Amino acid sequence: MSSNKIILSESEMPNAWYNIIPDLPSPMTPYLKPDGSIIGPADLAPLFPMELIKQEVSPERWIEIPDEVKEIIRIWRPSPLHRAFNLEKELKTPARIYFKNEGVSPSGSHKTNTAVAQAYYNKKEGVTRIATETGAGQWGSALSYACKHFGLECTVYMVKVSYEQKPYRRILMETFGAKVHPSPTKLTKVGREILKNDPDCTGSLGIAISEAVEDAATHDDTKYSLGSVLNHVILHQTIMGLELKKQLQIAGEKPDMIIACVGGGSNFGGFTFPFVAEKLKGSNIRLIAVEPTSCPSLTKGQYRYDYGDTGKMAPIAKMYTLGHDFVPPGIHAGGLRYHGASPLVSMLKDKKVIEAISYPQNPCFEAAVLFARTEGFLPAPETSHAIKAAIDEAIKCAKTKEEKCIVIGFSGHGHFDLTAYERFLSGKLEDYEYPESKIEKALKNLPNIEPKM
Amino acid sequence: MSSNKIILSESEMPNAWYNIIPDLPSPMTPYLKPDGSIIGPADLAPLFPMELIKQEVSPERWIEIPDEVKEIIRIWRPSPLHRAFNLEKELKTPARIYFKNEGVSPSGSHKTNTAVAQAYYNKKEGVTRIATETGAGQWGSALSYACKHFGLECTVYMVKVSYEQKPYRRILMETFGAKVHPSPTKLTKVGREILKNDPDCTGSLGIAISEAVEDAATHDDTKYSLGSVLNHVILHQTIMGLELKKQLQIAGEKPDMIIACVGGGSNFGGFTFPFVAEKLKGSNIRLIAVEPTSCPSLTKGQYRYDYGDTGKMAPIAKMYTLGHDFVPPGIHAGGLRYHGASPLVSMLKDKKVIEAISYPQNPCFEAAVLFARTEGFLPAPETSHAIKAAIDEAIKCAKTKEEKCIVIGFSGHGHFDLTAYERFLSGKLEDYEYPESKIEKALKNLPNIEPKM
Repeated sequence: MSSNKIILSESEMPNAWYNIIPDLPSPMTPYLKPDGSIIGPADLAPLFPMELIKQEVSPERWIEIPDEVKEIIRIWRPSPLHRAFNLEKELKTPARIYFKNEGVSPSGSHKTNTAVAQAYYNKKEGVTRIATETGAGQWGSALSYACKHFGLECTVYMVKVSYEQKPYRRILMETFGAKVHPSPTKLTKVGREILKNDPDCTGSLGIAISEAVEDAATHDDTKYSLGSVLNHVILHQTIMGLELKKQLQIAGEKPDMIIACVGGGSNFGGFTFPFVAEKLKGSNIRLIAVEPTSCPSLTKGQYRYDYGDTGKMAPIAKMYTLGHDFVPPGIHAGGLRYHGASPLVSMLKDKKVIEAISYPQNPCFEAAVLFARTEGFLPAPETSHAIKAAIDEAIKCAKTKEEKCIVIGFSGHGHFDLTAYERFLSGKLEDYEYPESKIEKALKNLPNIEPKM
Repeated sequence: MSSNKIILSESEMPNAWYNIIPDLPSPMTPYLKPDGSIIGPADLAPLFPMELIKQEVSPERWIEIPDEVKEIIRIWRPSPLHRAFNLEKELKTPARIYFKNEGVSPSGSHKTNTAVAQAYYNKKEGVTRIATETGAGQWGSALSYACKHFGLECTVYMVKVSYEQKPYRRILMETFGAKVHPSPTKLTKVGREILKNDPDCTGSLGIAISEAVEDAATHDDTKYSLGSVLNHVILHQTIMGLELKKQLQIAGEKPDMIIACVGGGSNFGGFTFPFVAEKLKGSNIRLIAVEPTSCPSLTKGQYRYDYGDTGKMAPIAKMYTLGHDFVPPGIHAGGLRYHGASPLVSMLKDKKVIEAISYPQNPCFEAAVLFARTEGFLPAPETSHAIKAAIDEAIKCAKTKEEKCIVIGFSGHGHFDLTAYERFLSGKLEDYEYPESKIEKALKNLPNIEPKM
């Protein structure tokens, strides 16, 4: 029997995160204020601890992982790399399919990697409470767990429709000791104003971000934490790609493609950035980002400056965007419902270093069910996008008889998403067309801002 | 940093299961028919494949694990042994606490270990469908996964109250391709009779067993499968204890106690049987079974012959029992709601080789929340019983300053039990007194059967 999974020992866990900034094909784009002036460290200080602000713009290729962080993430790290023998057999493909399982973390997804690091730096700088937003709840539960570990309070603004539809995720956060509010709330100015105009508003990620940012900005003891998009978040996630690199070496594999879903970009960036340098040096490796057809920022958005949130409270960033007031349909992959994408991922897409494709909801669930029935692990709706793309590539290999090596970033499990599976299995799952007219409308509201140098 | 977890490689996975029968302190007790005659292999043939019937009474100490079984269970095995550093710190105990995490399996519990083996032997002997019962759903989802792998149909009779209260578990089984019926059904004679007398009957594990047994007995292509109690089931679970033994050796530990929850007994037996031989040779190791106060078969039952199910269709076994018509209160640890216990576990309890204790529901959830907040992993309600006992032992160590080594069998995760956590966190979780009068009544209905030699 050839080996089914490649496990690294704790001592093989990376000691440093990989920072892609010094290896970018062009200089990183700055964050801006509405007047086009460049946001500096002092502007970000009310929101983030200084160490994270430094990481956001660090020119260092390697940033050491603190012992206090390693002590926690080693509870589930290094995560296993599995060979998907049963899926290969089912697809009758000569391709070799691997998946790296981040669902083994306590909160069930890759989000825990950066949650622990962020909670640590906040604690170190004397913060006593962190405010954040969450959509489907993967990020909120990861941060709740991390805050509990470091003795920080955690306040989560959860998009109201998810708060009501996904009680399990909310209860998990509460079990970890967090305080969870359905957003919009009456606790913030931005929330009160929205509720005044629309008392039945079911919320959006953009609104929840605005509430959490306001909470942090208006309380001295409180900082804000974001689960994706920003450079330092992706930095913490590169531990996945670094482990993957070692594991593939042990397996004697040279990957032909690495496939991961993309929402804000931290999952995709975390898996693929450690492979970008070799790609820039001429390697044929394909780095494939998969997003939902109904929220196609990388495949249909514009690469330009836009606000990070609906309330225009977050920094303005150069990224692929559908417009900051684009509200995507209610797909179950809540983590992929962001109007923009990480500036780093966006730049690499613009430079054609990475590729992006999109799929509708139903084919992704079909792929997820096939994966569960062959490999056993139930994918999160977000993860199912990468699985669908990998299956399609493996089927191509079956036709062309190419023995390609395909790696899936299995970002998280779907244990809290079973009602979506039930809808799919009973033929009741909605599919959504590419929302062309909505996107056109949102793109009209893009700000015309360029950096003032 | 000392190591947080002990991981074995795939090549260190045991190649044989440990059969305790040759090492028992007295000969195993036979299964009986209602007239006291001994049940032989031919009597069991309508229900089980011959290989499993042989394993049930095998005198061989080691039974080789087939390659086809190893190929599947290695997807998640060997399972990790964690050191619970954060829990120790929280308890200020000098004890060293370990937990072996069976929640990493695709269906989320130890049940998958025997499900794969049973599906394999059925497939090998030409069976095309397996019928089984499930309470909370851990067993049903494990068997659904295993059947899908070997191309077998799977019919699950799920206790109706759980079918309605725990939709996530049902949907998981359906995602794995099983057909799930709320029991009692109109599909079986026993189900129809129960519904005739009580159309609103919400079911019980005893009834669901009777339905699955009838289904198998009346269909040539179909066999029955049980997730606990029987010898061959515990046999397949000994892979946990065998791995644990190796892992403790690597950690340089000699365990003072191994603690696991007990329902039918396969989890407890699987973890502890590989340590029984040394106990019989004079080792001081304590093997502690933890059960709910509301279903206290080992702590309050009688050691004598009783039926395995309500409908009196299953074999009669010598075991600790509360009476086959005892119906325990609706605690959330559905897997611990069995009126009896494995004959092997029962004999070892009778011979004082193992110990048994019981806890009410609320203290177990309190322990589970503390565990989740320190170690991150959310325990199943069943598992919480072992955690509660381990915490109490660790607190004793804090008082006596004894540096004991305590091992918890972490049998499964609680991702599908979050509504119970919510009830606990909001102070609404029921507790149940030890049901003395109900047990007294049930014990009066115990059959007076002894083996006719």
